[in-house]
Amino acid sequence: MAKNQKLVEEITSMDVDFARWYTDVVKKAELIDYSSVRGCMIIKPYGYAIWEHIQQQLDKRFKATGHENVYMPMFIPESLLQKEKDHVEGFAPEVAWVTHGGQDPLAERLCVRPTSETLFCEHYANAIQSYRDLPKLYNQWCSVVRWEKTTRPFLRSLEFLWQEGHTAHATADEAQEETIKMLNVYAEFCENVLAIPMIKGQKTDKEKFAGAKATYTIESLMHDGKALQSGTTHNFGDGFAKAFDIQYTDKDNQLSYVHQTSWGVSTRLVGGIIMVHGDDNGLVLPPMIAPVQLVIIPIMQKKEGVLDKAYELKEKLSSIARVKVDDADKSPGWKFSEHEMKGVPVRLEIGPKDIEKGQVVLVTRSNREKIFVPMDELEATVQKVLKQVQQELLEKARAHRDAHTYVAASMEEFEKSLTEAPGFIKAMWCGSRACEDAIKEKTGATARCIPFEQEQISNTCICCEEPAKNMVLWAKAY
Amino acid sequence: MAKNQKLVEEITSMDVDFARWYTDVVKKAELIDYSSVRGCMIIKPYGYAIWEHIQQQLDKRFKATGHENVYMPMFIPESLLQKEKDHVEGFAPEVAWVTHGGQDPLAERLCVRPTSETLFCEHYANAIQSYRDLPKLYNQWCSVVRWEKTTRPFLRSLEFLWQEGHTAHATADEAQEETIKMLNVYAEFCENVLAIPMIKGQKTDKEKFAGAKATYTIESLMHDGKALQSGTTHNFGDGFAKAFDIQYTDKDNQLSYVHQTSWGVSTRLVGGIIMVHGDDNGLVLPPMIAPVQLVIIPIMQKKEGVLDKAYELKEKLSSIARVKVDDADKSPGWKFSEHEMKGVPVRLEIGPKDIEKGQVVLVTRSNREKIFVPMDELEATVQKVLKQVQQELLEKARAHRDAHTYVAASMEEFEKSLTEAPGFIKAMWCGSRACEDAIKEKTGATARCIPFEQEQISNTCICCEEPAKNMVLWAKAY
Repeated sequence: MAKNQKLVEEITSMDVDFARWYTDVVKKAELIDYSSVRGCMIIKPYGYAIWEHIQQQLDKRFKATGHENVYMPMFIPESLLQKEKDHVEGFAPEVAWVTHGGQDPLAERLCVRPTSETLFCEHYANAIQSYRDLPKLYNQWCSVVRWEKTTRPFLRSLEFLWQEGHTAHATADEAQEETIKMLNVYAEFCENVLAIPMIKGQKTDKEKFAGAKATYTIESLMHDGKALQSGTTHNFGDGFAKAFDIQYTDKDNQLSYVHQTSWGVSTRLVGGIIMVHGDDNGLVLPPMIAPVQLVIIPIMQKKEGVLDKAYELKEKLSSIARVKVDDADKSPGWKFSEHEMKGVPVRLEIGPKDIEKGQVVLVTRSNREKIFVPMDELEATVQKVLKQVQQELLEKARAHRDAHTYVAASMEEFEKSLTEAPGFIKAMWCGSRACEDAIKEKTGATARCIPFEQEQISNTCICCEEPAKNMVLWAKAY
Repeated sequence: MAKNQKLVEEITSMDVDFARWYTDVVKKAELIDYSSVRGCMIIKPYGYAIWEHIQQQLDKRFKATGHENVYMPMFIPESLLQKEKDHVEGFAPEVAWVTHGGQDPLAERLCVRPTSETLFCEHYANAIQSYRDLPKLYNQWCSVVRWEKTTRPFLRSLEFLWQEGHTAHATADEAQEETIKMLNVYAEFCENVLAIPMIKGQKTDKEKFAGAKATYTIESLMHDGKALQSGTTHNFGDGFAKAFDIQYTDKDNQLSYVHQTSWGVSTRLVGGIIMVHGDDNGLVLPPMIAPVQLVIIPIMQKKEGVLDKAYELKEKLSSIARVKVDDADKSPGWKFSEHEMKGVPVRLEIGPKDIEKGQVVLVTRSNREKIFVPMDELEATVQKVLKQVQQELLEKARAHRDAHTYVAASMEEFEKSLTEAPGFIKAMWCGSRACEDAIKEKTGATARCIPFEQEQISNTCICCEEPAKNMVLWAKAY
């Protein structure tokens, strides 16, 4: 049986084996393929189209907040990587080293960028002299490489696509404002475009970025109760500026160090979309980033007039949605499954009877709701339904997250909660690294963040029972 | 004197030293900066914005012709690169080799992609089984690395940004049709968007791509009379398919090899824009890819109402053009030079007298033509002027090229022509590699292409005087 005639094969159920369900979906929804390069994925057209929509939506937001795109070299000389002590310690163990150009060994090894702070710093040291050169608000879309031992498509791969913002400011306040502003941009984007609700907070010192003064994060909860760090923003203070000697002359002709930030999100977000919205029939895509928002499936397409009507409807709807007609020589049932697997938000069925009645059938992917729509109400209804689906996905994800967010006032409650039903756990912490390590050791859960919205769950640290400093959001995480 | 207060410094005149003029322009127009990584450039916001417009315009054309974007790994295992004999011979001498991941030596070296034929072939061998899987029309936007000895910004760098299309087809005819179709897409784009006229033709065997059956090219002429290969498309026949075993079952259930193509253009096009349109005052940008199409320069901006009027005009014009107000605390003269250096197509001057008279002044960058425009005709005039500038740049470039295209019926004429006035030379060729090599050896000119539009300049090869096979377009080239 030729490949194109295969029926949609069953995928593993989420409840049976979530990890297997995930890899089934990424393959069968045709998001990725594997290559012979360990840990590097091929992003196929359907997966890449999702990333393009993410890029467009984010890029618009970056530009609206005054950022400009640039492109830095993909290589970092070893001596440059080593300039900031914490940074090199964090990244050197996981970089790919280029040692030869053509036949010739290089005088100095180059690493393939795992992130580009050092390159931006070197540039800023040259480009910034006066307060008039500030702020610098740069962003770059590129791929980066981190030599991970175990990899999973989108979630953790040797190479991945991302954007990295790198900014330099005159004052510490401005850098802090930028760090929070971009965290808010990320959170707003994830909620309004990806339909994924986020918890915003600060990373503990243990979890912060190598070289940062403070790291902030947006954390989301996947269907299986594990957390996904979905984006981070870092305030570097003047640490990198001192290591790279990035100084400017202020209005009073005094030399000062700049204050810097960086922030990034990656193709990991696609993994989040899959694990938040997907179900046992495959992918479920929020309309705003769906490559195809509405698929038209002709019923009895060989009957005269059916295909013509299908194309006519496509024409009519294409100014308000991304529409495709599936006119393949396959049964409607096969096509229903195929497009459910690919998470197309709405399907439109049109057959001889519908044409006779002057109507179409709309079925939404997320809840399989079926409605009959008179032809003359079609455009308005499609717009309404797409908007509604987008909204409902966010509400559903929020309800799932809230239902799987627990509080624990003691280690017993914490462990019981994690065992019974994985999810976010809010619990108090004394602020010590020892307790953070102990909790991870005992339970496998990590401090996802110290949420901006604090609650007083109890008065003492659940680990050492000393007075509590913060409420921390804990979870097992990807 | 602080950096931002510098006056626009003089750049080297084109006629004095064209190479120096070029590097002055790329630096002073703020297109690029150098980094500590040899041969790798930093593309600054203004340069990157030009590339973004190129990308958008090309991507639209690729999608309109049925192509889909994907992303392949940036690494190629050494054994994979070696699968096609001619290909590895062409590229192995100029690739960067990754030998270590973190602390550990790799079992097999990986090269950083110089081009991705081998990765696409490996994927196609897995993804193509039946005629129903064809054609595959993929494209990828990415960066590639070629370990060049001498480098120049945009024209030849160790790393550069590009797109590479890779397609697989059922028949030889379809592959040939695709190869020519994409060459035409490139040529149309270059003429209509970049305002650079192109000569289309086929590369000689000596100049064709490593592994290709036939390579086609678009060639343009720079201001200094040297040619720039601006884009190429390759027909691979079934050579790669045989090396990678990419077979499909046809309608009669017979196994056949696919026929493949690839095609690419790169940031090199930005070099072409500079060298075709630029002048002694700096960059001249065609409106269609100019990051700023119209800059508003307030005259006596501290007088009440002037800046308000400038912002009001920006508001009014921003739906029809990319507009910026330069409200910096500098003299109008300084700003005129600055935006001329950056090649902004049109400048609008507005001062107290203009406000009184209900008019503005428009000055076009390319010919410094100055017109007074009544306020109520502004929008229509700006649209007209931008269109006109775009058109005039193309005509001017075509006139320059035609004036610097010569014919030579003998080696003497050929050499005389090259010495007196560099440009394209049309001359007859017998088709032998020996003559091609001899002409290059003697004159430094290379066979740019065998143009699709042939002329009979003479009857014999200018080198060996045997009967001529083709008219070849020769030039010294970048």
